[in-house]
Amino acid sequence: MAELVEDLCGDGILISPGRASRPYDFRSTPDERLARCPFCPGHEAQTPPEVFAVREGGGADSPGWQLRVVPNLYPAIPRESTSDEAFGVHEVIVETPGHTARMGDLSHEELFLVLSAWRGRFREARRDERLKYGLIFKNQGPNAGASLEHPHSQFIALPFVPERIRARARALQGGEYRLQVQRELESLDHLVATSRRLAAVSPRASRFSYELWVLPKISESRFEECDDGLLEEAAALLGRLLQALDGMLNRPDYHLLVHTAPFGEDRYWWHFELFPRLNRVAGFEWATGVFINQVAPREATHSWRQALAV
Amino acid sequence: MAELVEDLCGDGILISPGRASRPYDFRSTPDERLARCPFCPGHEAQTPPEVFAVREGGGADSPGWQLRVVPNLYPAIPRESTSDEAFGVHEVIVETPGHTARMGDLSHEELFLVLSAWRGRFREARRDERLKYGLIFKNQGPNAGASLEHPHSQFIALPFVPERIRARARALQGGEYRLQVQRELESLDHLVATSRRLAAVSPRASRFSYELWVLPKISESRFEECDDGLLEEAAALLGRLLQALDGMLNRPDYHLLVHTAPFGEDRYWWHFELFPRLNRVAGFEWATGVFINQVAPREATHSWRQALAV
Repeated sequence: MAELVEDLCGDGILISPGRASRPYDFRSTPDERLARCPFCPGHEAQTPPEVFAVREGGGADSPGWQLRVVPNLYPAIPRESTSDEAFGVHEVIVETPGHTARMGDLSHEELFLVLSAWRGRFREARRDERLKYGLIFKNQGPNAGASLEHPHSQFIALPFVPERIRARARALQGGEYRLQVQRELESLDHLVATSRRLAAVSPRASRFSYELWVLPKISESRFEECDDGLLEEAAALLGRLLQALDGMLNRPDYHLLVHTAPFGEDRYWWHFELFPRLNRVAGFEWATGVFINQVAPREATHSWRQALAV
Repeated sequence: MAELVEDLCGDGILISPGRASRPYDFRSTPDERLARCPFCPGHEAQTPPEVFAVREGGGADSPGWQLRVVPNLYPAIPRESTSDEAFGVHEVIVETPGHTARMGDLSHEELFLVLSAWRGRFREARRDERLKYGLIFKNQGPNAGASLEHPHSQFIALPFVPERIRARARALQGGEYRLQVQRELESLDHLVATSRRLAAVSPRASRFSYELWVLPKISESRFEECDDGLLEEAAALLGRLLQALDGMLNRPDYHLLVHTAPFGEDRYWWHFELFPRLNRVAGFEWATGVFINQVAPREATHSWRQALAV
């Protein structure tokens, strides 16, 4: 049973022994991975019953879907619990029926479905007032911590707001950090791409090389309040960025995060974070929380722009 | 030139473009690695001049040493700078002349020399009053972020105290966390091993599976104030633990950290942290700072004790 403890810096730790038994794809051959993939059409019985799907045909938990959301069979935190603290939501968004696609290979329509499903997961979780915070995250490839190959992202909702997120919310409630974001949105040293209402920036304070934020030019708190028009725009910009990333660094493993306001907070600035997984994070970072980034964000801006221009 | 920036959570980020050009061992063959290893005897000219060595013979920067400390040729932070912030110390402790040894293979005498050199690096750095904080860290193997195979650890001293370390210092100044450490020292669910003045515990709040703390049973602030007797004892206990780790998890990659008080703080509890690098840290952790640990610390206590009993 999962347990939540706090370390001496105030950060939460989820003790989740059940996670250890989950399958791991990347020690087997491509054929083996495909044959036993729990996310491929026809294998629906290998997952818990779906909680959401976009279908052209077929009944629940059968083929015919374009996108499918299922509870994680090995959740970091269980759905129900006798205690208030050690429960939550941990879901998998299977982004496409195709086993080998990368998110950057998806069509605009497919990507819109994914973003729309993400929005739906936040909206659904907010209805449970015991839940205080939600995060969409995608780990692309084994170096980014993925255990399965089939394209998927994950949603976790927690009955508490993590300390790191509380610190962000505090920073985004004060004026100073908002001003810094605003400066980056207006700086040609940091601005990577724009669309009508959105921009992609390479932030001055990037923990990771080539880290990118995609955010509304005019601050909005909640990703889940995007209308379909803004979601279309986000899908278009994200698609371009993922293709640029795949070209720039030869289809690297990467992380994609969707940061939205904690459910009880009114002031935030929702954004995507996208960064390839290049260098190993090592003892210095684990000890100090200080990250060493080998690519100056201004250089990263330049590389991103070149990759987008191809 | 290195630059220090702060992210919106208050954590520091070192922008260090120079690090990107450092050599990387683990894509070449064992013979190639050995032939060009900058840390092997006879290759002393490939490093900056040594700042410390234990020698049985030979002059500075020539063979005959048992242990050697050199400035890192690709420092995360440069030694001198025009600005106050972006400078520090980044050194490499070459732990033994033998290229392929692991720290757990070193003799008690060799291990004592390593711990003694670590103590010396802290003592030396403290003399420069512009430096506020120092850390010894060891990344064993490529999964732990090592770029070179030859056994080595590193020392970084910074002109500021990282936020994560400030939070620890605050926690260790208050009574509550000290009490928690004390409880773990006295709990058979957490106590892994003891010697006269030291103990190894598997803390309740372990971010990583099999994480271990080695610390004085009676709180002491500074590792660098250990006398030779305590250092002998620490070398003996650490040697046993490293051998147990190598047996328990088949010579895994791991991190070893030496936490001591920030130079200007009086109240702390120095300790080693030792943890194997098993699971990839993924998007959820990067976003939230909440870690998922798949091995309950009580189970880890049990595994460590079994491994020590072999």
